[in-house]
Amino acid sequence: MSKQKRIRDYGVKIGKLETGHYNSITDVDGVTVGHVTISDKDMHTGVTAILPHQGNLFKEKLIASSHVINGFGKTMGTIQINELGTIETPILLTNTLSIGTAADALIEYMLEQNLEIGRTTGTVNPIICECNDMFLNDVRARIITKEHVFEALKNTSSFVTEGTVGAGTGMLCYSLKGGIGTASRLMKMDHGIYTMGVLVLSNFGILSDLKVNGKAVGAELRDAILQEREEQDKGSIIIIVGTDLPVSERQLNRIIKRAITGLSRTGSIITTGSGEVVIGFSTATKIPHDKTSHCLTVPMIHEEDIDLAFRAIGEATEEAVLNSLITATHVVGRDGNERPAFKDLLEKFNLKLS
Amino acid sequence: MSKQKRIRDYGVKIGKLETGHYNSITDVDGVTVGHVTISDKDMHTGVTAILPHQGNLFKEKLIASSHVINGFGKTMGTIQINELGTIETPILLTNTLSIGTAADALIEYMLEQNLEIGRTTGTVNPIICECNDMFLNDVRARIITKEHVFEALKNTSSFVTEGTVGAGTGMLCYSLKGGIGTASRLMKMDHGIYTMGVLVLSNFGILSDLKVNGKAVGAELRDAILQEREEQDKGSIIIIVGTDLPVSERQLNRIIKRAITGLSRTGSIITTGSGEVVIGFSTATKIPHDKTSHCLTVPMIHEEDIDLAFRAIGEATEEAVLNSLITATHVVGRDGNERPAFKDLLEKFNLKLS
Amino acid sequence: MSKQKRIRDYGVKIGKLETGHYNSITDVDGVTVGHVTISDKDMHTGVTAILPHQGNLFKEKLIASSHVINGFGKTMGTIQINELGTIETPILLTNTLSIGTAADALIEYMLEQNLEIGRTTGTVNPIICECNDMFLNDVRARIITKEHVFEALKNTSSFVTEGTVGAGTGMLCYSLKGGIGTASRLMKMDHGIYTMGVLVLSNFGILSDLKVNGKAVGAELRDAILQEREEQDKGSIIIIVGTDLPVSERQLNRIIKRAITGLSRTGSIITTGSGEVVIGFSTATKIPHDKTSHCLTVPMIHEEDIDLAFRAIGEATEEAVLNSLITATHVVGRDGNERPAFKDLLEKFNLKLS
Amino acid sequence: MSKQKRIRDYGVKIGKLETGHYNSITDVDGVTVGHVTISDKDMHTGVTAILPHQGNLFKEKLIASSHVINGFGKTMGTIQINELGTIETPILLTNTLSIGTAADALIEYMLEQNLEIGRTTGTVNPIICECNDMFLNDVRARIITKEHVFEALKNTSSFVTEGTVGAGTGMLCYSLKGGIGTASRLMKMDHGIYTMGVLVLSNFGILSDLKVNGKAVGAELRDAILQEREEQDKGSIIIIVGTDLPVSERQLNRIIKRAITGLSRTGSIITTGSGEVVIGFSTATKIPHDKTSHCLTVPMIHEEDIDLAFRAIGEATEEAVLNSLITATHVVGRDGNERPAFKDLLEKFNLKLS
Repeated sequence: MSKQKRIRDYGVKIGKLETGHYNSITDVDGVTVGHVTISDKDMHTGVTAILPHQGNLFKEKLIASSHVINGFGKTMGTIQINELGTIETPILLTNTLSIGTAADALIEYMLEQNLEIGRTTGTVNPIICECNDMFLNDVRARIITKEHVFEALKNTSSFVTEGTVGAGTGMLCYSLKGGIGTASRLMKMDHGIYTMGVLVLSNFGILSDLKVNGKAVGAELRDAILQEREEQDKGSIIIIVGTDLPVSERQLNRIIKRAITGLSRTGSIITTGSGEVVIGFSTATKIPHDKTSHCLTVPMIHEEDIDLAFRAIGEATEEAVLNSLITATHVVGRDGNERPAFKDLLEKFNLKLS
Repeated sequence: MSKQKRIRDYGVKIGKLETGHYNSITDVDGVTVGHVTISDKDMHTGVTAILPHQGNLFKEKLIASSHVINGFGKTMGTIQINELGTIETPILLTNTLSIGTAADALIEYMLEQNLEIGRTTGTVNPIICECNDMFLNDVRARIITKEHVFEALKNTSSFVTEGTVGAGTGMLCYSLKGGIGTASRLMKMDHGIYTMGVLVLSNFGILSDLKVNGKAVGAELRDAILQEREEQDKGSIIIIVGTDLPVSERQLNRIIKRAITGLSRTGSIITTGSGEVVIGFSTATKIPHDKTSHCLTVPMIHEEDIDLAFRAIGEATEEAVLNSLITATHVVGRDGNERPAFKDLLEKFNLKLS
Repeated sequence: MSKQKRIRDYGVKIGKLETGHYNSITDVDGVTVGHVTISDKDMHTGVTAILPHQGNLFKEKLIASSHVINGFGKTMGTIQINELGTIETPILLTNTLSIGTAADALIEYMLEQNLEIGRTTGTVNPIICECNDMFLNDVRARIITKEHVFEALKNTSSFVTEGTVGAGTGMLCYSLKGGIGTASRLMKMDHGIYTMGVLVLSNFGILSDLKVNGKAVGAELRDAILQEREEQDKGSIIIIVGTDLPVSERQLNRIIKRAITGLSRTGSIITTGSGEVVIGFSTATKIPHDKTSHCLTVPMIHEEDIDLAFRAIGEATEEAVLNSLITATHVVGRDGNERPAFKDLLEKFNLKLS
Repeated sequence: MSKQKRIRDYGVKIGKLETGHYNSITDVDGVTVGHVTISDKDMHTGVTAILPHQGNLFKEKLIASSHVINGFGKTMGTIQINELGTIETPILLTNTLSIGTAADALIEYMLEQNLEIGRTTGTVNPIICECNDMFLNDVRARIITKEHVFEALKNTSSFVTEGTVGAGTGMLCYSLKGGIGTASRLMKMDHGIYTMGVLVLSNFGILSDLKVNGKAVGAELRDAILQEREEQDKGSIIIIVGTDLPVSERQLNRIIKRAITGLSRTGSIITTGSGEVVIGFSTATKIPHDKTSHCLTVPMIHEEDIDLAFRAIGEATEEAVLNSLITATHVVGRDGNERPAFKDLLEKFNLKLS
C-alpha cells in the first residue's frame, strides 16, 4: 500500500494466514482512514479518523463491540456500544486532553449530516479514543481544534500512512517512536473469504521487552545502546478492528478480546499506566436506525468457524504494532524530549530482524 | 391453569398487559415444568425442572442469557451461557447444598441422550440454580438424589403447580412461606404476538417490606400479628424467563435485567445474604450444535420494539412472586421451625389485597 | 433545606430510615452541589456540578464505582472508575450534546489546579453525565459554554435547589416536568452513624406508570386530564450517590446497583431510549495520587453490615426522584413544547398523595 | 523442588524476575497442593486440590477474584467470588463431567469442618475448575468418586508434582501431553518482598503454534515428525494464582487478567472450544466469616506498585505452561489414543530449546 518500508519488508512474517491486498484495515470494503498531523516545536500531536462505511452511519449502523484490556483511559462511547451492540459514528483517535474537543466536533459533524437528531429522533454517540502523548507533545496546550477533526474526517482514504502521523504523531512504543500501524488477514471459510483488519495507535512498552516474531530484539538493542535506566512504561494502546465477517455482537466481542494475544507476543505486559481499549465493528450487516415493521435477520457464522477469526486478529494485531514501530521516524519534541526511530537504530547497530 | 387460588383471584391485577392463556411460563410454546416434592419430618425440599423445548436441546440449542442481581449464590452454568449465548440443557432448581448431585444427574441425563458427548464432540454445560431452604429443611442431610432429578425431568408438563412444591417446598418469602410462582404476558407487535413467561423460586424478604400492587400489606400484617422481632433477610430468588420473542442474546440480556423492576415493586431491597439470578431463553431460534457450511441467520426485533418486552418482564416477575406467596401453604419443618401461609393470615386477620 | 415544598411536605414518607439533616446528598460531609440554569425562549438547559470533597480531588482521590442500569447514554469517565476504583474530578451533569464542551471545561479546570498533569504525572479522567432535554430545549444549539461549567463548579454549596434547575432545567419525568432531586438516609451501625446521599437528574417515564409510595397517582392523573395518547418514554436518569460509609469499591458497587429498587418503586420500567447510570463515591478514605512507600490501609465494613446501605440507597433514590418531580415548575420551551408541574396538577385536580 | 526435569533445566529462562524457592505456587506461604491420579486402561484422569491456607478457610476467608479468558467451560463458584471478593473453600481441578461429584464432595468436606453451615449460618461456595480429558480418558465413565476428592484434599503438601498427574493425567497441550505445571516469581517492593505463584492445568493448543521463550519450537517439531494433519484445538486451561501481595479484590482482578500475556507468549490463540479461567487469591488478609463490631482494615499496595505484579504473573504463567509440557510423560489412553511427551520428542529429534 504505502511506500513506507513495513515490517514484512524486513523479512518478518507474522503468523500463518495470508494478508489482504493492502495488509491494512482498509482491505475491509468501505473502511477508510484519515489523518491530521501537527508537528511543530513543542507540538507533536494529531487526529486520526476511521470511517467504518461510506454511507450514513447514523441511519445505517454497524454491529460493534468494545473491550477494555486496561481501563486507565478516557475512551468515550463504549457504554452505548455495549448496550446496543452498534456503532453510529466514525471513530476518532487523538491525545488524551483533547477528547472534549474531539467529541464536540464529532457531534457537530453528525448533527450536520442528520438534521433529525435532537428533533425527531434522539441523540448520537460519538466514539473517541485516546493515548497520552505528553512526552513529545505539549499536551496541556490542547492545540487540537474542531477544524482538525473535520479535516481528518474529510481526508479519509483507503491508503493508510503509518508511523509518525495523525494521532500517532507524538506517541511512543517500547521506548522508541511509535504511532499508527495497520495490518490485515484473510479468513477462508466454507461460505466465503473474509477480511480481518486492525489499526493500532501504539504508545506503550519499554525497550527491553520488545520482541519481533519471538526474537528478543529489544533486549539486544538495549544492550547495544547501553541505555542506563529504563523509563517507566505508561502502557497505552488503541486497537481498532474492522471485518466483513458476519458476526453477532457477542461473537465480535469474543474476537476482539483476542487482540491481546498478538499484543502480548510483541512483549507487552499491559502496565497499569494508561488505557488499552479495543473497538471492533463488522460491515456485514447494516442495522437501520428507523424502526422496521418486521424483524431484522442478522447473519452470523456458526461458532465452530470462529477460531479462524481468533487467529486472524492475533496475527494482525501483532503485525500492526510492529508496523507502527518500524515506520515511525525520529522525533525531537516538547522541551527537547526525543525518541529514536526503530529503523534508524536497526541500521546504526546493524541488527537483523529475521 | 391450576385450581390453586392465585393472586388475580384475590382481585389483584398487576400492570397493563394481558396474560397468556395459563398466565404461566408454559404459555411459551414448548416449555414444560416438572416438580419432585419431598416433605417429611425435617425434610422439606425438592427439585424443579424446566424444559425450554421438547426436542434435543443439546443438538438444537436456544439463545440464552443470564444476569446476576446478587451473586451471593452458587448457580452453575452461567459462564458458558455468557460466552456462547446459548443453553443446551434443561434448567434445574434445587437447594443450595444439592447442586453437586443435581449437576451430576443432569450430566448423566444428557450423556444418555447424546452418545457423542465426550466421544466425537465435547462436553455439556448443566444449568443448576439454587436457593437455601435451611430454615424449614435439614439442608445438611442433602437428601436429594439423582433419581429425584430424573423424576422431575420426566414429570414435566405445561401445567405448573405453584407454592410449596418442588424446589420451593422449603423456601420462605417475606417471612412467610414462599416457593414456586409463575406468570406470563402477551406482547403485541407489528410482526406478531409474543409471550413472555416467568417462573420464580422465591426465598427472600422480611414481612414489613411486602407490597402487593403498591399496597403495604406486609406492614399491615406485621402490625396485626404483633411480631416482635423481624428475622434477617437472606434475600435469594431464582427467576427463569422464557419467551418466543425473536431476540439476540444481547437483547435478551437487556430484557432479563429488567426482572428486577417487578421484584422491587413487591418490596425487595435485594439483601446481601444469598443469590439472585435470572436465566432467560428464547425459543424463537434453534442454534444447531453441529457446524453448518453456511452462515446462520438469526431473527431479532428492532431495538425500538423492546420496551414492550421490558414492561412484560417487570409485570410477569412481580405477579410470579405474588403467586408464589399466595399459593404457598403453612409448613412446619426442621426442628419445629415454621412459616405461615400468606393466604391463611389474610383470612385470619380479614385483610383485603385490593 | 430548601424553601421548596418537597415530597415529605405532602405527607409522603418513603421507607423506614431517618433522613439526614437536609435530606440531601450534601448531608455527606464535604459534598457540595452547584447549578447554572439557562432558561430563555428555546433554551432550557444547564449544568450541575457535584464536588465530592473540598480538597484537591486529583491529589486525594475517593473510592468510587459506576453502574450502568441502561447503557443507551453517553456518560464519560466510567472506564477508569471501574479499572482504578477511584474518582479524581468533580462530577458534571448536563445535556447530551454538550458533553464535549463539558469535558473540555472540566479538563481545563483540573489542569489549572494541577500543574503537574501532562508534565510530571499523567492525565486526568473527567466525569460527565448527561440526559437528553431536546423536548423543551434546543439541544442542537449546544448553548452550554465552558464558562457555564466553570460557574457551576464555583457555585457549589451544601444547599441544593431542586426541580427546574441546572442540568434539570429542560428535563421531563413521567410526562411531567422533572429535573434535579435529592434525599438522604442515616445508617446506624455498631461502629458509627453514616449517611447515604443521592442526587438524581430525572428524565424518564410516562404518566400512567407513576407511583408515589405505592399509590398509582400517575394513572389517576392521566384519567383526570383525559390525555389521549401517551408519549413514548425515552427513559433516562442519572443517579449520583455519595456516602461516608467506609467501603471497598466492590462494596460500593453492590450498594449503587440497588438504586434501581427505589427507581422501580416510582414506576419505571427502564425503557430502552436513553442512559441510566449510577456513579457513587465514598468520602471515608482518601487515596493519594502520589506513590507511597508503604501499603495503604482501607477501612471497610464487614459484609454483614451492608444491608442497611442497601435499604438506604433504595429509599433515598425513590425519594430523590419524587423530590425532582414535586419541586419542578411548569415550563414552556422549544417550539412551544411544554410540560406541566406535578404540584400544579395535584392542586388543579385536588389529588392527595397520602 | 521436584526431581522432575523442568523447563529451566533445559536452559530456558523466562523473563526478568527471580523465582521463589521452589519456583512453585507453594512458595506462597501456606499454600499446598495435592493430587490423586487415575491411570489404568481407558481411564486417565484425576483430581488436584489447592489449599489457599492451612486454617479454616470458611471462618477466615481470603480476598479472591476470578477472570474468564474464554467461557466455554463449566467452572463453578465464580459468581460468588465476583460478588463477595472472597474464597472460602479449597480449589479443586478435575475433568469436565466430574464437576458434580467434585462439588458434592467439597460441600461434604466443608460441612464436616463447619457444623454451623446450614444451621446457624448460611451455605458454602465450592470452587471447582475443569478441563476436558476425553481424548485420553473415558470421560463418559465418570470414574471420579467423592473418595478421590477427599484423598486429594488430604494429600496436599508444599511439594508439587507436575505433568501427567492429578487433574492433568489425561490432558493435552500443543498436541503433546500436557497437565499440571507451576512456577513463581518474587516481587521486591519498598515495603517488602512478595511472591506470585501460578499453577496451571494445561489442555490446549496445536503443535505448530508452540513457542518456547519466543522460539518456534512447535513448528520445528511438526516439520520433524512430518505430521500430516493437525488436530483441532479445543483450547482449555485453568490458571490458579496465589500471592501474598496485599491487594484489594479489584487489584487482584487486574493482576490475574494479565495471566493471558504469558499464555499468549507460549503461542496460544485462545480457541473457542473450551474453558479458560483464572482464579486468584491473596493470603495477605484474612476476612472473618463472622460479623465484627468494628470495620475491617484491608492493606493494599498503592496502584503505582502494581506493574511488578503484572510482570510477575505473565512470567510465571508462561513458565508454568512450559513446565506442564516438559514434565509430562507419554500416555496411551482410551481406545489407544496417545500423546507423545515433549521431552521424548526433543531427545528423539535432537532439538535444543535454548
